[in-house]
Amino acid sequence: MTRSAQSQRPEASLPPAAEHPFLLACRREESPFTPVWLMRQAGRYLPEYRRVRERLSFLELCGRSDLAAEVTVTAAERLGVDAAIIFADILLPLVPMGVGLRYEKGDGPRIEQPIRMAADVDRLTPVSVEESLAFVAETVRLSRAGLNGKVPLIGFAGAPFTVASYLIEGGSSRMHVTTKVLMQRDALTWQRLMERIVDVTADYLNMQIAAGVDAVQLFDSWVGCLSPRDYQRHVLPYTKRLISALRPGVPVIHFGTMTGSLLELMRDAGGDVVGLDWRVEIDEAWQRLGPEVGVQGNLDPALLFADAAEIRRAVREMLARAGSRPGYIANLGHGVLPETPVDNVLAFVDAVHEYGRR
Amino acid sequence: MTRSAQSQRPEASLPPAAEHPFLLACRREESPFTPVWLMRQAGRYLPEYRRVRERLSFLELCGRSDLAAEVTVTAAERLGVDAAIIFADILLPLVPMGVGLRYEKGDGPRIEQPIRMAADVDRLTPVSVEESLAFVAETVRLSRAGLNGKVPLIGFAGAPFTVASYLIEGGSSRMHVTTKVLMQRDALTWQRLMERIVDVTADYLNMQIAAGVDAVQLFDSWVGCLSPRDYQRHVLPYTKRLISALRPGVPVIHFGTMTGSLLELMRDAGGDVVGLDWRVEIDEAWQRLGPEVGVQGNLDPALLFADAAEIRRAVREMLARAGSRPGYIANLGHGVLPETPVDNVLAFVDAVHEYGRR
Repeated sequence: MTRSAQSQRPEASLPPAAEHPFLLACRREESPFTPVWLMRQAGRYLPEYRRVRERLSFLELCGRSDLAAEVTVTAAERLGVDAAIIFADILLPLVPMGVGLRYEKGDGPRIEQPIRMAADVDRLTPVSVEESLAFVAETVRLSRAGLNGKVPLIGFAGAPFTVASYLIEGGSSRMHVTTKVLMQRDALTWQRLMERIVDVTADYLNMQIAAGVDAVQLFDSWVGCLSPRDYQRHVLPYTKRLISALRPGVPVIHFGTMTGSLLELMRDAGGDVVGLDWRVEIDEAWQRLGPEVGVQGNLDPALLFADAAEIRRAVREMLARAGSRPGYIANLGHGVLPETPVDNVLAFVDAVHEYGRR
Repeated sequence: MTRSAQSQRPEASLPPAAEHPFLLACRREESPFTPVWLMRQAGRYLPEYRRVRERLSFLELCGRSDLAAEVTVTAAERLGVDAAIIFADILLPLVPMGVGLRYEKGDGPRIEQPIRMAADVDRLTPVSVEESLAFVAETVRLSRAGLNGKVPLIGFAGAPFTVASYLIEGGSSRMHVTTKVLMQRDALTWQRLMERIVDVTADYLNMQIAAGVDAVQLFDSWVGCLSPRDYQRHVLPYTKRLISALRPGVPVIHFGTMTGSLLELMRDAGGDVVGLDWRVEIDEAWQRLGPEVGVQGNLDPALLFADAAEIRRAVREMLARAGSRPGYIANLGHGVLPETPVDNVLAFVDAVHEYGRR
């Protein structure tokens, strides 16, 4: 499917700055159409992104604020989405902590010195985000300049549990057993590690806010491996402390996957919008979450491998479930997958704009 | 923690055969105490099992019915659980299909010729379970003899989706993208593959039933990667057909993980008992499932790495959520993890028996 220019995007109705549909939805105010963006919208599926990555490693690209901003802005413009998200990674704050973070080709992040005991926490280098992560603030400023007020800019960070699980497992994990064992067996080390992460992450997000992001998203991507009981005891207090430490007035999107049974607890931890994955139905989830939050999501990223007609059907069903209640942001239920056809991503965005008019 | 002999196990109250607490619970009838068993109770965490495995590969052990039965019976006796489960694997029916199934050390199953298109389905060798999987029927008979009526014997198989996902991905997978893409893009190949799996699995389970298992469990371990929409369209009809094809009168436990939003659909697909993972609360899940099914589960296997006091607390909370409604079988929310301390597994079983008296 090729795209019918910008005809389907309601450009003319775009209001300026704080009145943009994405920010209206974050505040649960009426908006003229359903805003949409995609997690990992500046990613490997996009030829423009792959061209930039030919010359640079992932971490090098994050460090080159000019190129990171270019990638951020290009993706938002190419897709015609209603928000841009800075090009960065949830594990960037681990670089100055001195744990030996590396990104291996196709294998995801590796941490050479994982955290397994109290002494490992002591060994973490104290981080001044203003010094060691200044390049992210610069990416925010350059992205804002590049976007020129056309769409809002989202900043982000990993939530404490997900960052801790990478630190403890030493990389991605399926069952997160080492993390759970440490949490159960060594509550004090867990507490100290989580507090360290909360402090650094709060500084990091507040730096992004000071540099000009309009909203932030907290990625607790792997928290769905926990039982509600463990979430409540070992995660909720820290995420809550982190969100409470953020500069007020900037909407927070609180996202995780496999969180069907954790949604109410995640809401209690904080955030203006709860990000849903595809495993829950939007209407049921939002009903459970109550009137005080918006929701974001939730198409299965794998559905973008179907044909355009099927994608349009799925979007239509998704929007029908979201209904007309203010506070809904269309998105996938997790990041765009690397091999996704660009035309299908465009079909997704266009279908939201077409079916999501008020 | 060491075990206080068999004192905590209510041996004296054990009724014979069909009146065993495990089978009473499968039928949602009152039972004198809460029955308990553990998925993968005959596994690597057990020294007796590791000793047998020193001499044989995983597939070799499955093929040696005498040793498979020994492993089955030893685990049930050692733990004092209320049901034994045959030692086998959900992928055994793939061996005669000729897809090149291998088990690599620490790396899980690999399939050398994965299924990706119609021609791959055509290539599958037709399977006569009575010929190629006769050793499993023999394991059932020998296990039954070894158990001598003391506790019931559970047979099992992989559910169609989970088996299909291994066949398509060529092994374990995190996101199951290839499976979802095939399902979306090539509905006819998906249908033919699922029908083949349903037919073989029905024959395979009926053979186990004929050989004498008292109940069967269907493992749809990875089905929680799907949205409710995709489960309903692409999985439910096949699982339903499979369960309907089983010889009546033998209880079916229908288990999956990450299925918080799929529970009602899984119930509709069939089964007398729905197996829950730790991501849902038993009381809420059972409430949603309604009066027509029992439930099984659901402690996080990682919790067995905590100390005995914490395990006992968690069991107590789990049983409190299960309440006094007949039809509850205590278990973990997935298989015992390889490094789990045996004493903690015993503490789990003992705590269920201690707190689960009527």
